[in-house]
Amino acid sequence: MSDHHPHTHGRGELMERLVAHGHLIPSGEPGVYGRGSVCETVYSGVDALLTHNVRQDEPEIFRFPPLVPRRLLDEVGYTESFPQLCGAVVCLKADELPRFKPSLRDSESLVFEHTSLALLPAACFPAYPAVARRGVLAVNGATLDLGATCVCRNEPSNDPVRLQVFHQRELVRMGTETQVLEWRERWMERAAAICEQVQLNATFAVANDPFFGRGGGLLARNQRDAKLKYEGVVSIAGTAGCAVSSFNYHRDQMGKVFGLTCADGSVAHTACVGFGLERIVIALFDRHGCDVRDWPENVRRILDLEGACV
Amino acid sequence: MSDHHPHTHGRGELMERLVAHGHLIPSGEPGVYGRGSVCETVYSGVDALLTHNVRQDEPEIFRFPPLVPRRLLDEVGYTESFPQLCGAVVCLKADELPRFKPSLRDSESLVFEHTSLALLPAACFPAYPAVARRGVLAVNGATLDLGATCVCRNEPSNDPVRLQVFHQRELVRMGTETQVLEWRERWMERAAAICEQVQLNATFAVANDPFFGRGGGLLARNQRDAKLKYEGVVSIAGTAGCAVSSFNYHRDQMGKVFGLTCADGSVAHTACVGFGLERIVIALFDRHGCDVRDWPENVRRILDLEGACV
Repeated sequence: MSDHHPHTHGRGELMERLVAHGHLIPSGEPGVYGRGSVCETVYSGVDALLTHNVRQDEPEIFRFPPLVPRRLLDEVGYTESFPQLCGAVVCLKADELPRFKPSLRDSESLVFEHTSLALLPAACFPAYPAVARRGVLAVNGATLDLGATCVCRNEPSNDPVRLQVFHQRELVRMGTETQVLEWRERWMERAAAICEQVQLNATFAVANDPFFGRGGGLLARNQRDAKLKYEGVVSIAGTAGCAVSSFNYHRDQMGKVFGLTCADGSVAHTACVGFGLERIVIALFDRHGCDVRDWPENVRRILDLEGACV
Repeated sequence: MSDHHPHTHGRGELMERLVAHGHLIPSGEPGVYGRGSVCETVYSGVDALLTHNVRQDEPEIFRFPPLVPRRLLDEVGYTESFPQLCGAVVCLKADELPRFKPSLRDSESLVFEHTSLALLPAACFPAYPAVARRGVLAVNGATLDLGATCVCRNEPSNDPVRLQVFHQRELVRMGTETQVLEWRERWMERAAAICEQVQLNATFAVANDPFFGRGGGLLARNQRDAKLKYEGVVSIAGTAGCAVSSFNYHRDQMGKVFGLTCADGSVAHTACVGFGLERIVIALFDRHGCDVRDWPENVRRILDLEGACV
């Protein structure tokens, strides 16, 4: 085990080191982890660094919980595009409760019933109906800071960067096509600067989502051709291709679904920018080692690790 | 609508005012709300005030996500004591995905299958196995700050203080009976002082949990007789009996279940203290009005609302 040549280790070994150092706390289920003291300090430092950048936009602040109405995932098209990642909530069937000794593990006994709630898989979804219900957008459109939002995806894996529950630090822009695209461009520049500040080597490139099924390939090609998605990608544990940020343009899709209207009466365009907080933290441990006392002075300072005494 | 005599309004009207001011953002489902800018500022102020008090304990920091293994809720006895509040996670059945146009709302079509995950209903549960796996406790035991933990309960309601997803600011103590009970006592004093600082009239008294079913009454009486649970209770919207904090002694129940052992070899006793962040924030809006510019200077200062310019 060596923290000095972290790039030569695979992701399985990285996971073992993160657990051994108490940075990730296993729950016993794949992709479900707690965070230890030092990990949380780094996480808070990354979040604060992003907040510092976010403030330049003078955004409105919204916070949304990780449960949403099931219909929301249908409306935004998530259920159809990514059915494999969806999680929904069931409860124990009320009128059968007195008749059995309850166990959540005993899923064979047909005592569950559906609720109307699902797990939130992408931080921005609740923001569109929330803003639409206030009425027409201002001339400047709207810029939202959704903070560190907990999201959940049904994707069990032992890869430390493929969690089933994690946090997206998410920003949303709504307005005209020009407003939205300029904002997305500016955030790609900011994200590149942030990665440099913490000495992560990130490359920014057009990307696509893992659309489901036979039609998925075509959707992915269309997404790339129209440059709807860019990602900031780093190497983790010697394996390339881990997206730590994404920059998504939805054209007027959300505007149409939720009736979001610009001041000039046109359908609003929207974009969102998301930073994968756990992925950035794990990329930092991989890059600089599991002992934060050995991290470069500049990185420690910018993440405020000195003040936190770690 | 008057913010100057909030106590004369019922909770339904309080909810309407919280929504009208943009403090709570409806999702369309009962008990599932986002938080607006001003609400989030108050929420952060309350959290920071608690952090200031928590630091006196020099706790270890842990953070846990709102999904846990289903077996954890069985092990701690939650499934048996509160089956009505449990939520479990299902996903769309993988081998049926290509055959249908997916809709999460279409719960009749039998395309769901169980996962091994449940929603976390009480913040402290993941902490016990996490600490137990490190081995025997130190002589001083362990004191944990779990931060603002998102928890979920299957309890649809239009009462603004009965949410299905909310945050507990949670602390946990593990050690000998004396260590644990002294710590709980100290936190009741701190909680009383905190309520005074923000000018909430709270009373602290023995309480019980809403245990399920016919045996529930006996369990509740035993809990009260042994003084296992105290609550800090406030009036909200003229209705008494809203618990905003709780102080729970588990005797050696968690210690036995998870093999938590004191330095002297005895089974560890545990206690947890939880502050209901949304409830405290809503109690503050009810007590001081929905416009934070009208709040008492002292309260604004202690919650750092000045710095946040609201």
